[in-house]
Amino acid sequence: MNPCTVYGMSVSGNCYKVRLLLEQLRVPYRWIEVDIIGGFTRTAEYLAKNPNGRVPLLEIEPGQYLAESDAILYYLAEDSPFWPHQRRQRAEVLQWMFFEQYSHEPYIAVARFICTMLPPGHARRSELPRLLERGAQALAVMEEHLRTRQFFVADSYSIADIALYAYTHAAEDGGFRLGEYPAIRKWIGRVEAQARFVRMPSAVPPAA
Amino acid sequence: MNPCTVYGMSVSGNCYKVRLLLEQLRVPYRWIEVDIIGGFTRTAEYLAKNPNGRVPLLEIEPGQYLAESDAILYYLAEDSPFWPHQRRQRAEVLQWMFFEQYSHEPYIAVARFICTMLPPGHARRSELPRLLERGAQALAVMEEHLRTRQFFVADSYSIADIALYAYTHAAEDGGFRLGEYPAIRKWIGRVEAQARFVRMPSAVPPAA
Repeated sequence: MNPCTVYGMSVSGNCYKVRLLLEQLRVPYRWIEVDIIGGFTRTAEYLAKNPNGRVPLLEIEPGQYLAESDAILYYLAEDSPFWPHQRRQRAEVLQWMFFEQYSHEPYIAVARFICTMLPPGHARRSELPRLLERGAQALAVMEEHLRTRQFFVADSYSIADIALYAYTHAAEDGGFRLGEYPAIRKWIGRVEAQARFVRMPSAVPPAA
Repeated sequence: MNPCTVYGMSVSGNCYKVRLLLEQLRVPYRWIEVDIIGGFTRTAEYLAKNPNGRVPLLEIEPGQYLAESDAILYYLAEDSPFWPHQRRQRAEVLQWMFFEQYSHEPYIAVARFICTMLPPGHARRSELPRLLERGAQALAVMEEHLRTRQFFVADSYSIADIALYAYTHAAEDGGFRLGEYPAIRKWIGRVEAQARFVRMPSAVPPAA
């Protein structure tokens, strides 16, 4: 595959998914760090690339863009071992990626954002009880599934694991307690033991 | 393809997507109407089929289930003209389906749910201003994309159009004004002109 360009924010789990897969596929890439907090994704320059104003964004060739983290994972992985050969298993990978974007990320990633990126007294902290309740429901579904499995689909590491690992492993940043989910913790260990695994940078700046 | 079974609620846009595609593919199916409001999706019997407790759910063969509406669309469409031949176009179909589930459905479908399924004085009506604002952002992204295109991807009707049509065409149920989006309205007409198109039942019970 040709080198590509990623527009992303390194501490974002959605952006980290793309970096992890690119590293594991050994695809050469250029990373353009985007300042979301500073408003770059709302500029006319960026909206011309992605009208939905989000990161990550993959520039496949000059001027050709693909948005949505899990669609980017699919695009990059289609010919790799991280996208299954069987139709039903491919559909199950997508099932877990849609679960991630609908039932998991809006709670677990948003709780982390509020706790690590906003000031301690911010009004959005009032959202946390609901986010913790709904996020815990998603973690319970994952825990039950992983109780008898090594990975999410076909007992083989796939882009479904990458999609779910990104915010799950950092869930404690948002106030979740991973100690309550032993199967998830073992699965996190299996993901981190994969070849060419790279860590997500911490969202919490280290103390000076 | 063998006959399959769908667990769904007919007035749900997510469930309607699956019915529309099955009709257009001429795949025989059995539809089991599920009473979400009555709590059937939270029963042990249903959670054994789908631990995430949502509809639609496709029973591919006895005891083999697939959840998430857009993953079901992919599974059913993979060998059909509604799933493109080119890798980048396939990724674009997924991009729009993830857009639908993350940036569109949580606002446009939820506004419709509040306005048509809850009593007029329900506390959740306080969510409507935010839902209308965020849903309008999603409609603006769609309008801009469709201004120069017949369909979402490769100017050809695909499961991306089915995924986005379901709640978009019914957006006025939730208080959106489709008259402000002429390109979307023309696209709705093109979707409704497809072979074997079937309508979604109205969420508003007709007056006695």
